Amino acid sequence: MSTVELTGIGLLTTQTAEFGDLPNAAVLIDGDRIAWVGPAGSVPDADEQVDLGGRCVLPGFVDSHAHLVFAGDRSEEFAARMAGVPYSAGGIRTTVEATRAAGDEALTTRVAALTKEMRASGITTYEIKSGYGLTVHDEARSLQVAAQFTSETTFLGAHVVAPEYARTPADYVDLVCGDMLAACAPYARWIDVFCERGAFDADAARSVLLAGGRAGLGARVHANQLGPGRGVQLACEMGAASADHCTHLSAADIDALASSDTVATLLPGAEFSTRANYPDARRLLDAGVSVALATDCNPGTSYTTSMPFCIALAVREMGMTPNEAVHAATVGGAAALRRNDIGSITPGARADLVALDAPNPIHLAYRPGVPLVSAVWKDGLRVH
Amino acid sequence: MSTVELTGIGLLTTQTAEFGDLPNAAVLIDGDRIAWVGPAGSVPDADEQVDLGGRCVLPGFVDSHAHLVFAGDRSEEFAARMAGVPYSAGGIRTTVEATRAAGDEALTTRVAALTKEMRASGITTYEIKSGYGLTVHDEARSLQVAAQFTSETTFLGAHVVAPEYARTPADYVDLVCGDMLAACAPYARWIDVFCERGAFDADAARSVLLAGGRAGLGARVHANQLGPGRGVQLACEMGAASADHCTHLSAADIDALASSDTVATLLPGAEFSTRANYPDARRLLDAGVSVALATDCNPGTSYTTSMPFCIALAVREMGMTPNEAVHAATVGGAAALRRNDIGSITPGARADLVALDAPNPIHLAYRPGVPLVSAVWKDGLRVH
Repeated sequence: MSTVELTGIGLLTTQTAEFGDLPNAAVLIDGDRIAWVGPAGSVPDADEQVDLGGRCVLPGFVDSHAHLVFAGDRSEEFAARMAGVPYSAGGIRTTVEATRAAGDEALTTRVAALTKEMRASGITTYEIKSGYGLTVHDEARSLQVAAQFTSETTFLGAHVVAPEYARTPADYVDLVCGDMLAACAPYARWIDVFCERGAFDADAARSVLLAGGRAGLGARVHANQLGPGRGVQLACEMGAASADHCTHLSAADIDALASSDTVATLLPGAEFSTRANYPDARRLLDAGVSVALATDCNPGTSYTTSMPFCIALAVREMGMTPNEAVHAATVGGAAALRRNDIGSITPGARADLVALDAPNPIHLAYRPGVPLVSAVWKDGLRVH
Repeated sequence: MSTVELTGIGLLTTQTAEFGDLPNAAVLIDGDRIAWVGPAGSVPDADEQVDLGGRCVLPGFVDSHAHLVFAGDRSEEFAARMAGVPYSAGGIRTTVEATRAAGDEALTTRVAALTKEMRASGITTYEIKSGYGLTVHDEARSLQVAAQFTSETTFLGAHVVAPEYARTPADYVDLVCGDMLAACAPYARWIDVFCERGAFDADAARSVLLAGGRAGLGARVHANQLGPGRGVQLACEMGAASADHCTHLSAADIDALASSDTVATLLPGAEFSTRANYPDARRLLDAGVSVALATDCNPGTSYTTSMPFCIALAVREMGMTPNEAVHAATVGGAAALRRNDIGSITPGARADLVALDAPNPIHLAYRPGVPLVSAVWKDGLRVH
């Protein structure tokens, strides 16, 4: 395998305690891994050298929450909501109809297009959830499509109750825990459940997570987005990797998160696009909770692939400093996926890096909406 | 001159009453002008044909308020402000020091870089203000730099009182109206004044605008950004083309705008980056006021070149519909510059057009942070 030296890095934000922020730095890539980090000019000989002209470099973003397998367009619904029509979980069903009607190729083409956008925004690892099929067949093929793009696949049959089971929701939970899980588990690493009024209550959610665990899937929970509830407590009780949304939290919820290994994953794109109040990241950070930032990319409530946009919102709206927001979008996302090979720049980690047309990562929030990502490497290969 | 047909336009939003929104449309460009608009497949023969594959097309955005001639970086000040330090107009002085110290080439290089960003965000016409020189020499050279890039140049010597005149502000107003204006007028189309507590009061602002008018410059006013004040009334009284910011308005201010030719130019990037309350666009539109959206691109309080970002904020935060926001960013911006050759797609207008990777312009707000602009033509030439 060949080595590449990235040099002329004006500021390297490694997101590690060991290296911290290094001015005038270089990184040596050996194959798909980072081999060396240090001052520019002192790097071992490399087969190739890339001069970054003073740009800042940070780890590739880790997007731990995305719904990319779907069909259809809900821009008119968005426009109506902005004009005053409130969001309800029922909107998901619009996408379910379109997704069931779409062929595998159409679904794959869409994921490929969104992948390209994500790369351009600096995301080098992303999770993909199913959840717009809601039949055994459509959930399984959604995950088969997802698995072509990422190893971080999540079975979300328990997104909402499938319309066919509207009058018999308990039967739908049985299906999710039974035949649907059996068909999906081979393509999934994780299981997730939307624990919210209008979706699944805590008891149903626990059944789903327990069944997933028996099938070897790690737990994730959509929790406390639309109002207070038992989702966060359930996530902590079940040892879930992540409780996602965390918009409405009690003091007990925060205590539970702080004393658990469960990451609080914040999704400000959803609050932006539903005109809801943002979660209070400051309160979580001050309590010692591990926080991740993710896009929640989905066609109903957060149709963005831009991690820089989420970072800007986290700073403007959620009380995070720019450095805390970048940490949450890298190290935080990695923790939410229980990965230690991504999210930081250190010897042995995957060579997933982002160079910005900016002198420091504060610019991600200071220059909102401006596409600052100038180059992206994933597993040592230039992908943008 | 050669003709180019843009065809395969899934939706053409002309921003004219005559054509409205046309599905399956084509546009014929003849040299630097639009020659014909109508259904795809019926266009006269063209020398060249560009198939847009179903993309939507809209007029190039018109950014009627930008401060692009400056040096220095204020990202640390931004981060401090987000951590709780309030914004004051005094921050401008940091940029004044850096701008005075910078050579013409450095200033020109920066404007060129920002121009490239603006083009990529779909902006085809932009205004540039001086205002970070605050000496006769530095204001004049700022405008000379600006005039290399745009005909919409604005003399803003009255941005803040120059530090040398802190104890004798009336003398600074005399300088602005005298020698500074004389040196700057040859390079400027407009004169602007920051009429706000901490900058210039209404009487000083009136003197500046009157002097500018005698030198042949049209009036613009920074008004009612940081609090209530007389700026909007002054703008209407003076027949200014635009009153900019309009964040704090009384009922009388809105009446004055509605019964004048003065456009209310809203700059939500400034509220985003100073964590201030947004102006109420709904109230202005409902009163019949002409509204423009602009970036306010500047290093202190709105360092964005993204009109799509401003559109998304206008929809999320200011009560505009996506279509109203696009109208304000095109027709509204043109009106704020008193231009009728830009901002809409109609025969005879300049061939300034934007194609989006999206089926409709709602996506500009529905997909926040995602760079959707796929192609930009200015004066008939592809510039992005």
